[in-house]
Amino acid sequence: EETNDGVVDGVRVPVVRLKFGEVSEASNVVVLPVCRAKEKEREVLEAPWECKSQGEFGLVVAEKGWKSWVVLPGWEPIYGLRNGGVVVSFSDARVLPWKVNRWYMEEAILVVADRGRKEVAADDGFYLVAVDGEGLKVERGSALKERGVEESLGTVVVVVRPPREVTDDQLNDEDWE
Amino acid sequence: EETNDGVVDGVRVPVVRLKFGEVSEASNVVVLPVCRAKEKEREVLEAPWECKSQGEFGLVVAEKGWKSWVVLPGWEPIYGLRNGGVVVSFSDARVLPWKVNRWYMEEAILVVADRGRKEVAADDGFYLVAVDGEGLKVERGSALKERGVEESLGTVVVVVRPPREVTDDQLNDEDWE
Repeated sequence: EETNDGVVDGVRVPVVRLKFGEVSEASNVVVLPVCRAKEKEREVLEAPWECKSQGEFGLVVAEKGWKSWVVLPGWEPIYGLRNGGVVVSFSDARVLPWKVNRWYMEEAILVVADRGRKEVAADDGFYLVAVDGEGLKVERGSALKERGVEESLGTVVVVVRPPREVTDDQLNDEDWE
Repeated sequence: EETNDGVVDGVRVPVVRLKFGEVSEASNVVVLPVCRAKEKEREVLEAPWECKSQGEFGLVVAEKGWKSWVVLPGWEPIYGLRNGGVVVSFSDARVLPWKVNRWYMEEAILVVADRGRKEVAADDGFYLVAVDGEGLKVERGSALKERGVEESLGTVVVVVRPPREVTDDQLNDEDWE
């Protein structure tokens, strides 16, 4: 279940829906390198680590070239994340370990992870991992610990859903089916 | 002389000052590859040509990797420029061919050029060129034609000035000196 502010109950990772023009209302924006989920961990490991914001125009200067980038509002969990921050784009939300409704399943999501925090530290934290045969997934700390996994690709700091014409309040699977 | 709307009189290139948080008020933003003026034409020739905006999150996908990028508001001259669009960052405005006041000289500028329009077509157009011994400059079409230069690195579509605490209306060299 998602609460109004986009935070899933009992889950420490905010799930935020972008608003139209929001990369926008933010007084600052963050530019992060994007990896394709289908490339598994390869791109997550290769993506530039350091993306400095430089000078008066806020030029983004990475330590190496990268093809794909995303501009996000400077939300609290993302801002200041530039070292080791990375975004993985998934075609739907099935990679998330919590139950999702039908609409959610049909939506693309972005998972923003901090590669500077690879250690599987918190039971109720969420981590980006590469699972053999399944590719990239988001898993709960407790589930990883049970399997003896101590290191992830990075701690998940926020999950971003795409902007929608209709708000979730107006159209809700649970309410109408 | 600069008019209030940032358009230099008699010059067909808008000179626009960024506002704080403006990459921002725009309902859309544009991400363009940035070249350093000190690298002369090398980076302008090498920078990715095609930077597609992809999917619901507006991911920027270039045809090759690049280190440095800038996010600009989707101003009319910039929007839709992604193929061949490039930004050159200069430490001051002395590369511009029109007279600039003292403040202007002390400011960094970004020159946004369209590499898809290399031909020196209009007398009163402005073009990005590499001048032997001087590096990158912005020159007037008429000046280039006089020297028999028919091809530039690209047509200049907008010059961007950094945001300022004090507006130009409040503090003006001509008025106060």
